[in-house]
Amino acid sequence: MIGIKSIASYVPTAGLDNYVQGAKFGKDEEFMFGKIGASFLPRKAEEQETSDLCVEAARALFASNPELDPQSIDVLIVVTQNGDEEGLPHTAAIVQHKLGLSTRVAAFDVSLGCSGYVYGLYAIKGFMQAAGLKNGLLITADPYSKIVDPQDRNTTMLFGDAATATWMGEDAVWQLGEARFGTDGSGAEHLKVTNGNFFMNGRQVFNFALVKVPAHLHELLDASGLQSADIDAFCIHQGSAAIVDAVARRFEEQHPEKFVKDMLETGNTVSSSVPLLLQKHMLDSSWQRVAISGFGVGLSWGSAILYRG
Amino acid sequence: MIGIKSIASYVPTAGLDNYVQGAKFGKDEEFMFGKIGASFLPRKAEEQETSDLCVEAARALFASNPELDPQSIDVLIVVTQNGDEEGLPHTAAIVQHKLGLSTRVAAFDVSLGCSGYVYGLYAIKGFMQAAGLKNGLLITADPYSKIVDPQDRNTTMLFGDAATATWMGEDAVWQLGEARFGTDGSGAEHLKVTNGNFFMNGRQVFNFALVKVPAHLHELLDASGLQSADIDAFCIHQGSAAIVDAVARRFEEQHPEKFVKDMLETGNTVSSSVPLLLQKHMLDSSWQRVAISGFGVGLSWGSAILYRG
Repeated sequence: MIGIKSIASYVPTAGLDNYVQGAKFGKDEEFMFGKIGASFLPRKAEEQETSDLCVEAARALFASNPELDPQSIDVLIVVTQNGDEEGLPHTAAIVQHKLGLSTRVAAFDVSLGCSGYVYGLYAIKGFMQAAGLKNGLLITADPYSKIVDPQDRNTTMLFGDAATATWMGEDAVWQLGEARFGTDGSGAEHLKVTNGNFFMNGRQVFNFALVKVPAHLHELLDASGLQSADIDAFCIHQGSAAIVDAVARRFEEQHPEKFVKDMLETGNTVSSSVPLLLQKHMLDSSWQRVAISGFGVGLSWGSAILYRG
Repeated sequence: MIGIKSIASYVPTAGLDNYVQGAKFGKDEEFMFGKIGASFLPRKAEEQETSDLCVEAARALFASNPELDPQSIDVLIVVTQNGDEEGLPHTAAIVQHKLGLSTRVAAFDVSLGCSGYVYGLYAIKGFMQAAGLKNGLLITADPYSKIVDPQDRNTTMLFGDAATATWMGEDAVWQLGEARFGTDGSGAEHLKVTNGNFFMNGRQVFNFALVKVPAHLHELLDASGLQSADIDAFCIHQGSAAIVDAVARRFEEQHPEKFVKDMLETGNTVSSSVPLLLQKHMLDSSWQRVAISGFGVGLSWGSAILYRG
């Protein structure tokens, strides 16, 4: 079955000291650590385009998987809402060229924010099955530094730039199990770009996550015939430390520590947050079953079970 | 098997008399009819957003399929590169809300241009299979009137606004067969938006279509074990009358008339051109097997066989 064979990432080494940035807004280190959750926010260079971040992540993937011939990639999906150019052409076409992939690749962008990786996994697996393809590259890259106003205290302390690349193919160790998805466009205004600047209603987004995500995870487990105890770890979108903590406590009063929190050096990397957790914590683990969940812009959410095949 | 159950569309009744427009650029009616292929170019109203075109097409689909409960839609994909807002949130979330669909819908945009419907068919079928979903809505809406400069003779005579909605589900009459895809980002510059204006290198795009599409269709037929005589009709992207004619002659010297040409009242409607042809010519036909092909922005192309199941 087609599943996750490998994950690699690119996190720019340059960036912002978030404690220094927090101090500018009168926030102490306790707040930055405990509520925001990031002491450092990686930032791409001004001249780096979104496609360049994708290329770095893909090259890291190829480097760590010498058995994967880049010329065998036959589908490439880029999950982004901040691609190159002005939306046309799509970033995936530019990445095809920069990586020197075969022109026989099916390449397109999926427009989703923080829920994008969960959707992307099922989109690429499904596309591969429906079209009879063998090796997929699922890339996430949504550099919010393009749209965040450094003077906006609601957003500038939260977001970091990063990209990830996931190799999807047959005989994968990690398989995709049950999934559940949801969309509520009535909340679209809570996360949107106007005149090139990103706006977020933090309170509304926090409430949305706290109400929606634990219930969605319970629904997913029920649909899968699983108990919380069957899940080794919950890798959910790292919106902020406060969001991860609140969702974890509401979902799992007994074992909130099963919710992985690891965003201190990256911040909220949008659709890259879940694959960054999986790369770092799941791939080399002894875990048997992991629940993932992404939620954000749209409003949109998606949760799924990953299991060892 | 999941396939195409129904297709509906929305074509604005307002628009441009393209013969009058052609005359401004010194083009006579023979040129407009024979080379451009459109006597009329539908134009959305200024206040209509892309999501509004999607909603009109979806409502037409629901009206013509009373057995389809809108609340049963569990996945919604919008194919566009000219969505609402500034790319964030995605248009599919806005459409979910405007249509009053269930919040249990998986909704996202696919960023592709004139090749988008072919990719979209396999993306939505695959996503439905991978995630266990039942009723899909595949919408195309890419109103180029947002980005075409009325003074640019290379583009303003070509593009019309339209939207289509395709119902995907089980027990469908029309099934998806073999498909082939391709991407060449080295040609990205031939079709792109800069500072809000669309640029097209018409000669390069014409040559690309003429070299790539007939060969791609032959490859698709070979892979399917089919001869040209097994295909009742070819419904390819209606880039211009000249492109359709040239591709048809190069592919099928004996029967170029099997290439459906129907764009006189719509022009080039980007990702809506293929589903508009299918709605009008395939659904009520006695055809057994149809080949479709889309090609354009990216550069990107995709071809597939549709057959009665």
